[in-house]
Amino acid sequence: MPKGVPSATVSRLVTYLRVLTDLERAGVSRTSSDILATEAQVTAFQVRKDLAYFGSFGTRGSGYSVHGLRQELRRILGLTRPWRVAIVGMGRLGQALADFPQLGEFDFELVAAFDVDEQKVGKVLGGVEVRHTDELARAAADLDIDIAFLTVPTPAAQAATDKVVAAGIVGILNFVPTVVSTPPEVWVETVDFLAALKRLAYYIKGRAPVIDESGVKVGST
Amino acid sequence: MPKGVPSATVSRLVTYLRVLTDLERAGVSRTSSDILATEAQVTAFQVRKDLAYFGSFGTRGSGYSVHGLRQELRRILGLTRPWRVAIVGMGRLGQALADFPQLGEFDFELVAAFDVDEQKVGKVLGGVEVRHTDELARAAADLDIDIAFLTVPTPAAQAATDKVVAAGIVGILNFVPTVVSTPPEVWVETVDFLAALKRLAYYIKGRAPVIDESGVKVGST
Repeated sequence: MPKGVPSATVSRLVTYLRVLTDLERAGVSRTSSDILATEAQVTAFQVRKDLAYFGSFGTRGSGYSVHGLRQELRRILGLTRPWRVAIVGMGRLGQALADFPQLGEFDFELVAAFDVDEQKVGKVLGGVEVRHTDELARAAADLDIDIAFLTVPTPAAQAATDKVVAAGIVGILNFVPTVVSTPPEVWVETVDFLAALKRLAYYIKGRAPVIDESGVKVGST
Repeated sequence: MPKGVPSATVSRLVTYLRVLTDLERAGVSRTSSDILATEAQVTAFQVRKDLAYFGSFGTRGSGYSVHGLRQELRRILGLTRPWRVAIVGMGRLGQALADFPQLGEFDFELVAAFDVDEQKVGKVLGGVEVRHTDELARAAADLDIDIAFLTVPTPAAQAATDKVVAAGIVGILNFVPTVVSTPPEVWVETVDFLAALKRLAYYIKGRAPVIDESGVKVGST
């Protein structure tokens, strides 16, 4: 990948891809940096700058092919190949993710699940048989696991991460609300639903009544 | 709230608040737009521009008080008051969220849970008693519910949303991978873990072996 691409650019490429996917589904064949910018809530300059890290995709005056740019973004993001996913931690969140209806989008395939609970090992949960976490290294080699979803309890997060790393898995999607340490060759992305909750608070703070400690409405924020 | 604040600015304010919280925990008392920019992976100009929507917080040459700016951002984001949360849909994801250890951060309080499954109604799951979704309107009034987490199956998403809206709840955190329609007075934020998964693919795509259809390694992406 090109050096020095800001992570914010990578996040925006994901957004542009989502916009292009929606446009393609709607039967739109051409688009522009202005349209992408409006949908992604950034400036058209930002769109052009983000894309320029990876080459020259548009035609001056006629914009972008929706299909063509979508394919380029899929290629840039690494979404033209299958990714083999394992869930580490088959508690309620792990099981919910195993059932998640859109995991197959862009060829993410759930191939294994792990837990330390002997009661769960051997059972089929969310369509996959649960293996013991001690089996991670062997299963990762047998099944060519690329990505681990980390959904263990917080106190178990680092120990589970160490097993994932030792198994040669190079990507971790971390759902645990803690920071885990990995060597530089392993990439961790964190899913932070509390950030979305805080954005929500901003947008509704003028709309919701303010309740004092005794439960009495005292006005609006 | 000030008009015309871009949603990307709101997202970044949430990031700045996280950075300031980490700095305060680490005992740091002063910071700068350069430091905030580095931690949030944007430019210092962007930090100053984002904050300028809401007033003037720093002192030229000496930067920002970590504690003071953190308090201002909490106020701007609406995080100085308690928020009363209900979970609508007590399947595995709803139950996992009810147990989520950091929900109490910034005074988000889980006060109710709803499901249409009579087997679940009346049971205590994740520390709260499950009520029937038909009770939403009465419970929302009794308990002053501000925010609903939407964790129902995809086909039930719009019907559940309509009940949330009819109950007078003004904010929805949508975990269902579909778009729900609401009137303009109700704000919806969507939790999109697939976006994090796509960013992860970008970062590991040069590191993971490429497997062909028969399972043979054929090189790297």
